[in-house]
Amino acid sequence: MWKVLATPVPVGTATRIEKRLKSEGTKIAVVSQPVFVTDGCAIEDFNWPDRIVLGTDSPDAVLTLKQIYRPVVMRGVPVIVTNHETAEMVREASTAFLATKISFINELASLCESVSADAVDLALALGLDKKISPRCLQPGARFGGSFVEADMDSLAQLASGNGVSLKILSAAREVNRTLSDRIVEKISHAVESLAGKQVAILGLAFKPHTNSVAGSGSIAIAKHLMSEGAKVREYDPVAIKEAQAELSSAVCYCDSPYAAAEGGDALVVGTGWPEFRALDFEKIKGLLKRPLIVDTKNLLDAARLRAMGFQYVGVGRGSSVL
Amino acid sequence: MWKVLATPVPVGTATRIEKRLKSEGTKIAVVSQPVFVTDGCAIEDFNWPDRIVLGTDSPDAVLTLKQIYRPVVMRGVPVIVTNHETAEMVREASTAFLATKISFINELASLCESVSADAVDLALALGLDKKISPRCLQPGARFGGSFVEADMDSLAQLASGNGVSLKILSAAREVNRTLSDRIVEKISHAVESLAGKQVAILGLAFKPHTNSVAGSGSIAIAKHLMSEGAKVREYDPVAIKEAQAELSSAVCYCDSPYAAAEGGDALVVGTGWPEFRALDFEKIKGLLKRPLIVDTKNLLDAARLRAMGFQYVGVGRGSSVL
Repeated sequence: MWKVLATPVPVGTATRIEKRLKSEGTKIAVVSQPVFVTDGCAIEDFNWPDRIVLGTDSPDAVLTLKQIYRPVVMRGVPVIVTNHETAEMVREASTAFLATKISFINELASLCESVSADAVDLALALGLDKKISPRCLQPGARFGGSFVEADMDSLAQLASGNGVSLKILSAAREVNRTLSDRIVEKISHAVESLAGKQVAILGLAFKPHTNSVAGSGSIAIAKHLMSEGAKVREYDPVAIKEAQAELSSAVCYCDSPYAAAEGGDALVVGTGWPEFRALDFEKIKGLLKRPLIVDTKNLLDAARLRAMGFQYVGVGRGSSVL
Repeated sequence: MWKVLATPVPVGTATRIEKRLKSEGTKIAVVSQPVFVTDGCAIEDFNWPDRIVLGTDSPDAVLTLKQIYRPVVMRGVPVIVTNHETAEMVREASTAFLATKISFINELASLCESVSADAVDLALALGLDKKISPRCLQPGARFGGSFVEADMDSLAQLASGNGVSLKILSAAREVNRTLSDRIVEKISHAVESLAGKQVAILGLAFKPHTNSVAGSGSIAIAKHLMSEGAKVREYDPVAIKEAQAELSSAVCYCDSPYAAAEGGDALVVGTGWPEFRALDFEKIKGLLKRPLIVDTKNLLDAARLRAMGFQYVGVGRGSSVL
C-alpha cells in the first residue's frame, strides 16, 4: 500500500507520517508530490507539467506513479525522485524564485524610467538568454495570487524557524509591496492632486483569466487612491464580486469599461485582460475628462494611444522607444 | 556610414556620441551592441548567441548588421532592435539577474541543510520549470569572474546615481560575499580548530576551463583559512600563476592534487574542474591525515566517497539523499 500527499504541507510532514505509520506497524509507502497548478491554466499545467516530483524512498511507489502518469511521462516529462523534505520545498521555492524574478525586473523598470531605457525591450533581451527564460519577466505593477503569498510566508517562516536568513526573498517581497505606491505616485503626479479626482480602474483580478483578487495590484492601487481622496470606478469581466469583499463600498462598480471611464481624470489598466487591447479608445477618449492612461501592465499600444492624443504612462518605459 | 560600439560602456554613452557627431554635422549611425561572451565559452557564445541586441535608430545599420551576422541570424537567433540606453543596460542586467539566481539557490541550500532537504535535487526540480531554466542554479560556494563584479558595480552605481534602489541585487551580492565564510565554518566545525591545521584546496580558478581567479570562492576560502591559522596547500591545472598574484606567499602550490592532499586535515574542492571527479580517491584517502572532503561545488559522488570511509560535506545536502 502507498499514499500520495498533495502539497502544500509544511516541510517534515511526510517524514513524520511515515515514522508514525512505521511505529504502529503499518506498511504504507508515503509519497510527497508537489502540484504545480496556476490560476487560469490548471488544465494545461496538469496535462503539460514541466516535471513530476516524487518524494519517497519506495521504488515500488515510484513505479506505480509512473504508470498512473504514463500519458504524461510518455511525452517526455521528466520524473525527479527525491526525499520528502525536498519534494515538500519545491513549490514554495519555485514561487519564491518567480516572485524574485518579477520583482527584479520591476526594480530595473524603475531604473529604465530614469535613464531613458525601455524595460519591455530589456526584459525581452534578458528573457531570451537561455539561462534566464522569458516567463515571469514582465515589468508591471505587482505579482499576486492567493498561493503566492501563502507559499512565501510558509518558506520565510521555515527559514526563520531554522535560523536561516532568506535575504533575497525578503528584498523581493519588499519591492513588490511598494510597487502600487509608485503607480499611485505616477497618477498623482499627472493629475496634480488626487483629492476629489475620479479614477477608472480596468481589471481587478490579480491576473487575467481568473476571478481571484488575492494580492491583486489593482486592489492595492484602488485602496491607496481612495485613501488620498480620489473616487474610484471599477470594471472587471469576472472579478467584481470578489473585489467587493475586499474594497470599501465607496467604490463604484461598472458593467463595462466605458461606464468606468465616464468622467474620469485618469484610466488605469490594473489587470492584463487581453480584451482591454481591443477597446474603442476613441470612445474612451470622449468619455474621459482627461485623456490620461496609466498602464500598469504595459498591455496597450503606447505609440497608437499617444498618436491619438492620450497621455500614456507605462511601467519602465521612460524612453522614446514604444 | 555607421559605427558599432561594443559594450561595456556606461549607459548614455552612445546617445552622447551620436549627439556630438550630429552637432559636428557628421552623418554616422551609431549602434550599441552588447557582447555576451563568458570565460571558457567564448567561441560557443559567439557562434550560438541566445540573441543579438542592436541599439540604434538607423534601419540601414540594422540591415547591414543582419547581413554581417547572417550565418547566425539564419540559424534562428533573434535580433532585438531597441534604443541605445536599453542595449547598454542588457549585459549588466543579465549579469545581475544570474548573480541573483545563484545567490537565491545558495540561500535555499542553507535552508536545505537545516531541514534535511537536498539542494541539488531542489535545484533540478526548480530548473526544469520553464519559467526558471536550469542554468546558473547550482548551489556552490560563490559566483565570480572579473566581468561579474564590474557589471554589478556599474549597474549599482547607475541606480544609486539616479536615486533608484536595487534591493534584490544588493541582497544577492551580500549573500555571495558571506558564502565562503560558511564553507570555512564547515571545515572549522569538522576539524575542531583551524589553528595549525593543514587544508588542501583543489581548484583556484573561479570556474573550470579558465585561469581567471577574479572573485574566486577558492581564493576567498584560502585567505579566510590562513587568517584563522591554517596552512594551505593548493592545486589548479592552469590558474596557479594567477592565484600567486592574489594570495600571500605562505601558500604552498603543488603540481598535482595528490601532492596537495599530502598530510592534510581536510581536502576542499574549490573549483568544479571535471578532472577532479576522476581522481584516485583511495590514494587520496591514504595521503590525507583525516579523510574529510568539503566539496564546495557538489562535484563529487558523495555516496561513493562515504562508502569509502570519507567524511563528505557538500553544499545544501543536509539530508540522507545523496
